[in-house]
Amino acid sequence: MPERKKILITGVSGFVGTYMLKFLSCKNVAVLGMDKERKKLFDDGNHKLNYEFRSLDLLDFTRLKDNIRSFMPDIIMHFASLSNVAESWKRPDYAYTNNTNIFLNLVEAVRQLEFDCKILSVGSSEEYGKVEENILPLTEQNHLNPISPYAVARASQEMLSKVYVDGYGMKIYLTRSFNHIGPGQSSKFFIPSMVKQVLEANENDNIQTGDLSIIRDFVDVRDVVRAYWMVLESGRPGSVYNICSGEGRVLRDIVLKIIELSGKQLNVVKDPNRIRPADNQAIIGSYDKIFNELGWEPKIHFDQSLQDVLSERF
Amino acid sequence: MPERKKILITGVSGFVGTYMLKFLSCKNVAVLGMDKERKKLFDDGNHKLNYEFRSLDLLDFTRLKDNIRSFMPDIIMHFASLSNVAESWKRPDYAYTNNTNIFLNLVEAVRQLEFDCKILSVGSSEEYGKVEENILPLTEQNHLNPISPYAVARASQEMLSKVYVDGYGMKIYLTRSFNHIGPGQSSKFFIPSMVKQVLEANENDNIQTGDLSIIRDFVDVRDVVRAYWMVLESGRPGSVYNICSGEGRVLRDIVLKIIELSGKQLNVVKDPNRIRPADNQAIIGSYDKIFNELGWEPKIHFDQSLQDVLSERF
Repeated sequence: MPERKKILITGVSGFVGTYMLKFLSCKNVAVLGMDKERKKLFDDGNHKLNYEFRSLDLLDFTRLKDNIRSFMPDIIMHFASLSNVAESWKRPDYAYTNNTNIFLNLVEAVRQLEFDCKILSVGSSEEYGKVEENILPLTEQNHLNPISPYAVARASQEMLSKVYVDGYGMKIYLTRSFNHIGPGQSSKFFIPSMVKQVLEANENDNIQTGDLSIIRDFVDVRDVVRAYWMVLESGRPGSVYNICSGEGRVLRDIVLKIIELSGKQLNVVKDPNRIRPADNQAIIGSYDKIFNELGWEPKIHFDQSLQDVLSERF
Repeated sequence: MPERKKILITGVSGFVGTYMLKFLSCKNVAVLGMDKERKKLFDDGNHKLNYEFRSLDLLDFTRLKDNIRSFMPDIIMHFASLSNVAESWKRPDYAYTNNTNIFLNLVEAVRQLEFDCKILSVGSSEEYGKVEENILPLTEQNHLNPISPYAVARASQEMLSKVYVDGYGMKIYLTRSFNHIGPGQSSKFFIPSMVKQVLEANENDNIQTGDLSIIRDFVDVRDVVRAYWMVLESGRPGSVYNICSGEGRVLRDIVLKIIELSGKQLNVVKDPNRIRPADNQAIIGSYDKIFNELGWEPKIHFDQSLQDVLSERF
């Protein structure tokens, strides 16, 4: 019988961390979860999992290294991130350190400890930045042109990953993950924010939005965690994989769909506070590479995801 | 009479900072120099300059912001950097924070203080990284492919600069500066290291080198500081300017030239400790852009620079 794999998950209390824990609960693994705070939700569910939680700020390099040394994971899934673009415009330095620097601490700790470990480095479709619409859908060969603090932080993380792979021989697996959808996401993000407003609104209320003309590619978080597992199992270190639905959706259509599903009569109003200094007009990805190399493709359709988000809230 | 311009120089005790102080000594400016340590050298020379020095670690955001608030510079010349590629391989996290994070602290402090200030962000030819030799010389349009921790840190700094320019409207002036040559450079760098070894060697000694087949473009530091002044005076914020000689030199030829100038008989020996995990084979730049837009071109020929370096040491 193969030895039980030890998996370290950073940002385990977050949206993706939660779903990864659920995904792993049927596997023969031991998990050490790290985050700044433990969320109640995750204490209950995963009884079958060999699971331990430790509270940790990943900017504290010494404590991070000590904790990695004591656990010696076979796999590190690094989900800790300040992953909200709008927030990154308000606190660019905080967003940067809580993406790039926490990742650097992590890979540097593993490098210094000199042990064999696979690391998942999650990137973002935001890294592509401003692109001509005629080159859509985006493939991994497209050049990066990040235009927000968050996007720069993720592009920096990816560049660092390649140096650690090529220069130090480490096993870092890279993705560019597109917009997520799924129940449980923070209402700081677009879809949950719209759902929250719509559900709390009275008849004929205004719904405050940002720029609704932009187009994004939403992929269900449950498909995402499955992709991460496949990349770690069979992907190539240092090679980037898009994780996306391949379909672009105009944000206005999503808001109108949410309003329609609520059965309410509501007005959509643009809120200047929700307009960002700079934004990518359209982001649509191609998942050809991960499909061709690893056989992954999205299984949960957007309408189902949206229905699940609304069901959770009703 | 125009008001005297206030200039903040970070890394003022370093190689480039010293030369910039000399360059500014004939101008009607007030300079606040910052560095971790004051170097004796700079206390003596620049008597005509209205000059003040403050010891500061740029990673200390609060103190940095306080110091900027009290001085309110018109121009910030940011030279503080751990700019040695070989060292960055040994201490990647330290190299990263002492490039990207100190820069981020600086621009974020200026953003938060909301005042009008030009900032010079010095980048590196190393950002270009691995390139096909048939695309040489490198122009600012070439894509970045950084392959060392130092190069990634500089590329990150450049991406951050563009976000601060485009997203927050700040006036950040960008360069990609190629390898420097000039008297006073630390012997951690290639040419001073070779010169030091050659001068200290006895007849028939071995000179330890890294990979001498690689090609670099060396530009004299006195030409460099003149270029920085022109970029700050007349360049375009957010636009990158190569600062280079336009000529590639094989490192082996430089070593042989130094040995020849010393008049000694010496053996050149490859030292495995001086080989880096990954290196760019050839870096040669084009200065067409800065020449066409600002009229800058290098004035000091490599042979003159090398002679000056040797004269200082003899």
